[in-house]
Amino acid sequence: MADVPNGQPSDAPLELYNSILAQSEHVRCLKASKASKDEIDSAVQKLLSLKTSYKAIVGEESKPGCFPENPAPGSKSGPEATKGSEDFVDPWTVRTSSAKGIDYDKLIVQFGSSKIDKELINRIERATGQRPHRFLRRGIFFSHRDMNQVLDAYENKKPFYLYTGRGPSSEAMHVGHLIPFIFTKWLQDVFNVPLVVQMSDDEKYLWKDLTLEQAYSYTLENAKDIIACGFDINKTFIFSDLEYMGMSPGFYKNVVKIQKHVTFNQVKGIFGFTDSDCIGKISFPAVQAAPSFSNCFPQIFGDRADIQCLIPCAIDQDPYFRMTRDVAPRIGYPKPALLHSTFFPALQGAQTKMSASDPNSSIFLTDTAKQIRTKVNKHAFSGGRDTVEEHRQFGGNCDVDVSFMYLTFFLEDDDRLEQIRKDYTSGAMLTGELKKALIDILQPLIAEHQARRKEVTDEMVKEFMTPRQLSFHFQ
Amino acid sequence: MADVPNGQPSDAPLELYNSILAQSEHVRCLKASKASKDEIDSAVQKLLSLKTSYKAIVGEESKPGCFPENPAPGSKSGPEATKGSEDFVDPWTVRTSSAKGIDYDKLIVQFGSSKIDKELINRIERATGQRPHRFLRRGIFFSHRDMNQVLDAYENKKPFYLYTGRGPSSEAMHVGHLIPFIFTKWLQDVFNVPLVVQMSDDEKYLWKDLTLEQAYSYTLENAKDIIACGFDINKTFIFSDLEYMGMSPGFYKNVVKIQKHVTFNQVKGIFGFTDSDCIGKISFPAVQAAPSFSNCFPQIFGDRADIQCLIPCAIDQDPYFRMTRDVAPRIGYPKPALLHSTFFPALQGAQTKMSASDPNSSIFLTDTAKQIRTKVNKHAFSGGRDTVEEHRQFGGNCDVDVSFMYLTFFLEDDDRLEQIRKDYTSGAMLTGELKKALIDILQPLIAEHQARRKEVTDEMVKEFMTPRQLSFHFQ
Repeated sequence: MADVPNGQPSDAPLELYNSILAQSEHVRCLKASKASKDEIDSAVQKLLSLKTSYKAIVGEESKPGCFPENPAPGSKSGPEATKGSEDFVDPWTVRTSSAKGIDYDKLIVQFGSSKIDKELINRIERATGQRPHRFLRRGIFFSHRDMNQVLDAYENKKPFYLYTGRGPSSEAMHVGHLIPFIFTKWLQDVFNVPLVVQMSDDEKYLWKDLTLEQAYSYTLENAKDIIACGFDINKTFIFSDLEYMGMSPGFYKNVVKIQKHVTFNQVKGIFGFTDSDCIGKISFPAVQAAPSFSNCFPQIFGDRADIQCLIPCAIDQDPYFRMTRDVAPRIGYPKPALLHSTFFPALQGAQTKMSASDPNSSIFLTDTAKQIRTKVNKHAFSGGRDTVEEHRQFGGNCDVDVSFMYLTFFLEDDDRLEQIRKDYTSGAMLTGELKKALIDILQPLIAEHQARRKEVTDEMVKEFMTPRQLSFHFQ
Repeated sequence: MADVPNGQPSDAPLELYNSILAQSEHVRCLKASKASKDEIDSAVQKLLSLKTSYKAIVGEESKPGCFPENPAPGSKSGPEATKGSEDFVDPWTVRTSSAKGIDYDKLIVQFGSSKIDKELINRIERATGQRPHRFLRRGIFFSHRDMNQVLDAYENKKPFYLYTGRGPSSEAMHVGHLIPFIFTKWLQDVFNVPLVVQMSDDEKYLWKDLTLEQAYSYTLENAKDIIACGFDINKTFIFSDLEYMGMSPGFYKNVVKIQKHVTFNQVKGIFGFTDSDCIGKISFPAVQAAPSFSNCFPQIFGDRADIQCLIPCAIDQDPYFRMTRDVAPRIGYPKPALLHSTFFPALQGAQTKMSASDPNSSIFLTDTAKQIRTKVNKHAFSGGRDTVEEHRQFGGNCDVDVSFMYLTFFLEDDDRLEQIRKDYTSGAMLTGELKKALIDILQPLIAEHQARRKEVTDEMVKEFMTPRQLSFHFQ
């Protein structure tokens, strides 16, 4: 960290910086006290001229909260997000300039989490007696917080539970949305633990141009896709925030507890909220945090507030749970542990997350076999060469090839995957052949999902979403 | 408003002020970036020494948001509060320098409400066929919003409902707390309408140093005093926010709807919140707003969202409902109507509201006859003269005499009150006699309240607080 001034501020940038801060407050004060327009205008002019001087001297915009010599968390300013090279990660935006995608090792350092290393994977294998999921073997779930503590508890026969979720922003889910659920189902199977799934329809109502009714209807539709992943109805509770908040004796109490212990300054720092954001957004992080505490679910856990929670999620959700882990000890609850996944790349390349609103950026769970073939052939960014001759001579680049990336997510056979990597890299395998390998995996995968989803009735959704005892006994 | 500097800051207090502001931000920044303890400690020391210098020079504590020349909220600037002469009114502070109390006519202009005039009182009398309550006859309920609209609806046989509330900050309630409930009971009787009573234990948990359990236990204790006011169990639903939020299918949905339509800038302007306030406080106004909409109570109103709400409350609660009325049309609900009361003066004088934490500022509902006599005789601010001779010659001043003010609240007989006013003003009545008149009213009033409260069992509290149909049919 750069040096910070300890003496009386005296150098010009610092003085200017102080004046800007004071003048901003002054403008706010004038506005709040309904001062005359002239008075406000003149104060605003003054502020602008101070800012201009600052920029001229310092060479960049002034930013509240950090002295000129003292870069803010992250790297230079603004919310606690990742900005190494050109990467940016928060719950709403994932951006990188690299075709290889986000630099995840850097992200671990910046977020202060821990790498899922070979040793941890071996320990999971020993504890469960099961071969680690391909998402672990291939570094798709790559980062964690306190997973060793969960394993300690598990090995000592102490209970824990899984918590994951989905923001139902539309009816359409794509394959990328399945990643946390596929992994969570595996965790549920190998550890034999209860699972709660939050459908944050309140969040989507607050952030999107949706009615409450639309947001809730997306909850029901998305719940079908989640159930189709094969969760055990006797071990799984799926809940809509909009509905469950009005049915649970513990949920709102935990929300209020968390809200008492987090300031606007903190959510501003973590999520980048501004004064123009609605108070719903500002207070929502507490709603996503609350299910980390077991007494939100007395029907499952009785009155126990001390059952360890493990949250599998994409790493962009980590800011919510950094906040949760900060609050937990102050309100007498255990910190939730986390398992973080990388992002599922868009067909166009790993620079961005997939988008539910762009039909060609993703393979949707409703796509036909033909649509899948067309999308992969037409839109999947290729690491191949411009001509067959060049490709045979120099080989393709698996690091940027989206079809290959998708295979790492969905092809179970490690040997086959390694063979494809070698063949494509050497040029022995052509782009068309690589794409065909992916299509051959995706078509049955999606068709089987669709078949399972068809079996999911409204009654089953209702049962998954009914607060009830699960097949576990907690006291 | 005092002059504010327009040129480059140069005078010492302003420079110090700027440095304090900047140093505060710097400390926050260090904490957010997890700087070393030494670094933070040294920055905090620096901040404290700057504050000490400021206080030595300026003569008062530095306050963020306002320049040294520009006094902080409470007298000249800050949130949308009343600032005429020295009056200040918001939900947490009521302050005036006048022994006569707040200038309520000015408050009506500043809040943009309407005066309850003779014409409106006559209309209430015609509509209900009942003599107007003494609180109306004497200007204790003095201001309203849309009461004519409520009467239009009533005369057209359209339903409306009453909503009032209490923040249960301690077990102890004083007579001033009864004012809205005494009046609400009268409204319920003469209009024959349902009533919902919000116990905002979540608010008290957020604002005070209380646990959730303490806040809820105060809810139960205070509910007994409210029930002892004589509310009809078949027409009244009392609810704890902490409890009912987890029992109602509609409450949280309305809270989220309101939260989507109010920004931090708005609550900052209305309530004076700052960036250091917890997100619970910032979002709470939506919880107080929501019961203004009938679909928070489907057990009473079915699925109807359009039933007019009338809120009797002390005028310091108006900021919440100004906000509510601003949001209502944007989310498709009717604006609640309001009836505003003046404040019940402290025994020491009308400059402040009574305080539940100062036992001598109020007559408590638990006081014995002897305590009442002692408090009135010893602490009730008197408008009498220094000697009997002077008093006989010049008379007393009813405008500042707290015993007389209390009589306007509790003595039902208009002629007797007018006689006392004349006799005390002329000097025919001495201060001791006036105090005795008040003691003779208060002692049986409190004793009867205590007797009624004794009759209130835990089962009755439970029944009042159970969501259920009331004796009305809405469809």
